Amino acid sequence: MVPSDQVSRPPSRGRPRSADADRAIVTAALDLLEQHGYARLTLESVARRAGVGRPTIYRRWSTKDDLVVHVLTETVPPLEAPVTGDAVNDLRTMAIEFVTGLVNSPAGRSVLAVHAEAGRRPDLAARLREGYLLPRDRVVRDIVAYGHRHGQLTTGLGAETIRDLVFGPLIYHWLVSGDPLDPDTAATLVEAVLPAIRPPRAH
Amino acid sequence: MVPSDQVSRPPSRGRPRSADADRAIVTAALDLLEQHGYARLTLESVARRAGVGRPTIYRRWSTKDDLVVHVLTETVPPLEAPVTGDAVNDLRTMAIEFVTGLVNSPAGRSVLAVHAEAGRRPDLAARLREGYLLPRDRVVRDIVAYGHRHGQLTTGLGAETIRDLVFGPLIYHWLVSGDPLDPDTAATLVEAVLPAIRPPRAH
Repeated sequence: MVPSDQVSRPPSRGRPRSADADRAIVTAALDLLEQHGYARLTLESVARRAGVGRPTIYRRWSTKDDLVVHVLTETVPPLEAPVTGDAVNDLRTMAIEFVTGLVNSPAGRSVLAVHAEAGRRPDLAARLREGYLLPRDRVVRDIVAYGHRHGQLTTGLGAETIRDLVFGPLIYHWLVSGDPLDPDTAATLVEAVLPAIRPPRAH
Repeated sequence: MVPSDQVSRPPSRGRPRSADADRAIVTAALDLLEQHGYARLTLESVARRAGVGRPTIYRRWSTKDDLVVHVLTETVPPLEAPVTGDAVNDLRTMAIEFVTGLVNSPAGRSVLAVHAEAGRRPDLAARLREGYLLPRDRVVRDIVAYGHRHGQLTTGLGAETIRDLVFGPLIYHWLVSGDPLDPDTAATLVEAVLPAIRPPRAH
């Protein structure tokens, strides 16, 4: 059977088809973000590098911020909770595999650069929160809720605090060290913080 | 007695004297970083805004990176260890007063933006580490060494890990929330992490 996204699209006319054009645009934008930074990115430069016409970009994204939030959303893998029935284990896996993978990828510094820019631009910050952060936070909230229900995480700390305690040290270490985050360092930091998030009796 | 820096400088000739010019340059650079971001900063734009001649800037800083690292070093208050004889208390005070003060100041987002840029530029990263980070890390190392010696901090964790655990959650919270970091949130995060850094017997 032909996948439905192949029959629902008009036939190619020498231009990349819609899904291909989207992929080329996202890749081009990410490359340009990485090489030249957020400030120098323009929709024109993305169109040129992606080999698509400017209308192809403007039809979907009317501003650079629209495109950048889309690029981060597409590029940073959606958090899939590795639900093992052990919330501490889930958080450990997310931190070591997901955070390490993200910050060491080309997208890592771009995410940081866009956050830095968002600090000066409340409109970008709001869009970033809505499109990027909240959907990614939801998985952590689900894991923490599970851990609270099953006595695996201290109920004295809310989901947001536990998120900050588990992921914060890794991100901060990466931020100030300037080096890639190696999985051993990530594992050391997560293990170190566990006494703070486990229920008192489990000590 | 006349302070020595007043007699060792040549008399004013209608231009700001050296210390005044330095202050004007730092203020101008910080304003421009905050308003337009790192990428759009030029030595020319700083000279114009500071009201000094370009040679005044180029005599001291031959590149934009030299100037930016100097600006961060001058603007971010040097960490003064509040040595109270209680390492946990010192770390708590530093986190709540120093970190909160920094991230909520105009310099906060600039520090982040320069870190984001340093991720793409190893030469800037090296200069940032040497001139900015290491001197600021030394105080934390001293406090942790004191805490280790006096049984106030677990010797199972090194100074760098303790630094990451105490400051990381605050910085991360500020980074992803997009809001100023309020001292109550900072205090909650520091209190939450204490079980991880105190010696096991103190639980």
